[in-house]
Amino acid sequence: MNAKPLGPIPPGFATLDGELAIGGLTASALASGGTPCFAYSRSMIEARMAALRAVMPERISIHYAIKANSFSPILELMSQLCDGLDIASGAELAMALAAGAQAARISFAGPGKTDAELEAAISAGVTLNLESEGEAERALACAERLGARPRLAIRVNPDFDLRGSGMKMGGGARPFGVDAERVPALARRIIAAGCEWRGLHIFAGSQALDAEAVIAAQGATLDLAARLAEEIGAPLPALNLGGGFGIPYFAGDIPLDIGRVGEALAGRCAALPPALAGAELAIELGRYLVGEAGVYLTRIVDRKESRGETFLVTDGGLHHQLAASGNFGTVVRRNYPLAIATRFDAEATEVANVVGCLCTPLDRLAERAALPRAEVGDLVAVFCAGAYGASASPADFLGHGRAREMLV
Amino acid sequence: MNAKPLGPIPPGFATLDGELAIGGLTASALASGGTPCFAYSRSMIEARMAALRAVMPERISIHYAIKANSFSPILELMSQLCDGLDIASGAELAMALAAGAQAARISFAGPGKTDAELEAAISAGVTLNLESEGEAERALACAERLGARPRLAIRVNPDFDLRGSGMKMGGGARPFGVDAERVPALARRIIAAGCEWRGLHIFAGSQALDAEAVIAAQGATLDLAARLAEEIGAPLPALNLGGGFGIPYFAGDIPLDIGRVGEALAGRCAALPPALAGAELAIELGRYLVGEAGVYLTRIVDRKESRGETFLVTDGGLHHQLAASGNFGTVVRRNYPLAIATRFDAEATEVANVVGCLCTPLDRLAERAALPRAEVGDLVAVFCAGAYGASASPADFLGHGRAREMLV
Repeated sequence: MNAKPLGPIPPGFATLDGELAIGGLTASALASGGTPCFAYSRSMIEARMAALRAVMPERISIHYAIKANSFSPILELMSQLCDGLDIASGAELAMALAAGAQAARISFAGPGKTDAELEAAISAGVTLNLESEGEAERALACAERLGARPRLAIRVNPDFDLRGSGMKMGGGARPFGVDAERVPALARRIIAAGCEWRGLHIFAGSQALDAEAVIAAQGATLDLAARLAEEIGAPLPALNLGGGFGIPYFAGDIPLDIGRVGEALAGRCAALPPALAGAELAIELGRYLVGEAGVYLTRIVDRKESRGETFLVTDGGLHHQLAASGNFGTVVRRNYPLAIATRFDAEATEVANVVGCLCTPLDRLAERAALPRAEVGDLVAVFCAGAYGASASPADFLGHGRAREMLV
Repeated sequence: MNAKPLGPIPPGFATLDGELAIGGLTASALASGGTPCFAYSRSMIEARMAALRAVMPERISIHYAIKANSFSPILELMSQLCDGLDIASGAELAMALAAGAQAARISFAGPGKTDAELEAAISAGVTLNLESEGEAERALACAERLGARPRLAIRVNPDFDLRGSGMKMGGGARPFGVDAERVPALARRIIAAGCEWRGLHIFAGSQALDAEAVIAAQGATLDLAARLAEEIGAPLPALNLGGGFGIPYFAGDIPLDIGRVGEALAGRCAALPPALAGAELAIELGRYLVGEAGVYLTRIVDRKESRGETFLVTDGGLHHQLAASGNFGTVVRRNYPLAIATRFDAEATEVANVVGCLCTPLDRLAERAALPRAEVGDLVAVFCAGAYGASASPADFLGHGRAREMLV
């Protein structure tokens, strides 16, 4: 059986007593409270933030998009490490406030905000990134009912996208934001209504690994923002440049060169047009900050052969790892990085399929992976599990429920 | 903008005061307790069961696979209407027992059963469909620890699949069941160990709409079961023939002709080989029994235009309707059946995209659908939401949580 390549294991994981170790604890120790579980490495998140701060110009704020991972200890950590938290629902607003984030450093984007969500956000004093003229009118009406002065920004649907991004969020017709050409009129309406004008949010795409593509999108974003500020006729107080920084999931993926991105952004920051000179500039990242720092640990419950293939059946699965199973936003199923955590220093000696415990052929964690021989009781680690794992998987499928999570 | 076809609305839904009505209640009335919500029609489930009983030979038992929808009022109803409940986890065991199902009418299939799940199942007295020789040994060890006589069946990985099925569960190398050629040895081992021998479970695929394919798979299943029973050297006490009955989701899908399936099965039942003559014969259905009886109702929160396209943004989305969004087990995204529930009798007058409230381009409920013009406050109905909707979607994404469910 020919092996299919596994994705690259992110750098920074240690080996202890032959096992994968996170935060100084072996996989066995981490799993001792029960499997499946997610372990997130505090030091890897801190190191990622430090590396990013080191290359980004000082005037660029770094925001955390909490949808990537809203486990409360992660939120508490990120509200300390980052300059702002970006939320996408009323529930995430409550989470961000509970984690101790200041309302003034929270912004709320996302189509389909209900009146109840708009009211909660305006009452709390967070910035709303308006997604349409209709939402703007609803927000103004809410603010009037509440007797509050809302902090309003406009999310722009740019007239370009982020080349090579895993998910395009801008360009063409989109459910997100206001088409760039209609933004100036809406901004003037908001300013005239006496709201606190918080500028623009321009998000062109996500999960890009090509620095040149990110640089081009950021450049186009700054150009568009400057043009819109001119047309609005007021300097921009703030500009969220979006994110789009990807992480390597699959064999052949090359990590994004953030040094080049930071250098290009510094160059742009040194020569900002007047309309942007006073703007708070932010990038908004989720996956890039926490994705590689998380591991999903699941125990092998059965080892079986079927017509020449080996199946390692685990007690976890797509109910916690929908994206790793290949069923979320991907067309072609490829293997995430994965290892036998309890034999982390062992050589690969066989080719095996790693599957979850759900009674569906969709529940595959790795296809034809070259692995050391593993037995019932061994632990499997799925890497890149820090973002869009626990938060974006159907945990209730077959009644299993959420996996335990730990920040270590 | 050219319209993309919507899937066919299942027959049996009524119009009341111009609105979609379920169980005599309008969509507005159903949604008055809050949106998004799922409404399941008791009478449609009962009618489906009655239609099935009418065409199936009397000696065929009908089991409900609760993974399709485990909402507790549905489980109570199905435990009354069906002859057995099929479960796939320890959590589902607890749900089935709580719904009042007798343990003797419950069977538990699924790879990756943990020791704790095996113990709970053996203690309760439910039938275990063993997925491997390794699981068989663990079950025997559990039974010995408990001092109990386990009820054991073997799930067979057949040497054929269900032609035209949406998901193949058999044929070739599979994580499910024991390869047919190794089943006799394992069955003899179980019988010799003094267990209660409960026969075979042979599941070749799911979501098939072609009666000839289902008939062929059932025929092959009966042939294989008879051959295996001969080789085992004992008559078969029970045979679960699996299911695989599909429902139409997409434009052009033709409903399965269950009359032909029932007729063919009656023919086979009239001439069973001696090894099967005394067997309880069952089919196991999930989606087919409840899928078309459920509707997901979500309210339009925003109506917006972007570069010539109209977007209806709802307060629901893929966190409750992962499959309808095209992100679960499908390669090409096609539209589910969908309607403006509050304008159910109105003609289509525009082409619009219906999207959810999540901040991801994956969150689409309908692409370029021909619909009557809808406004903020109108309700959207997504049909075929009775199976693998609430139970198989990432409800916690963005912190939204589960939708309200009702059996009406």
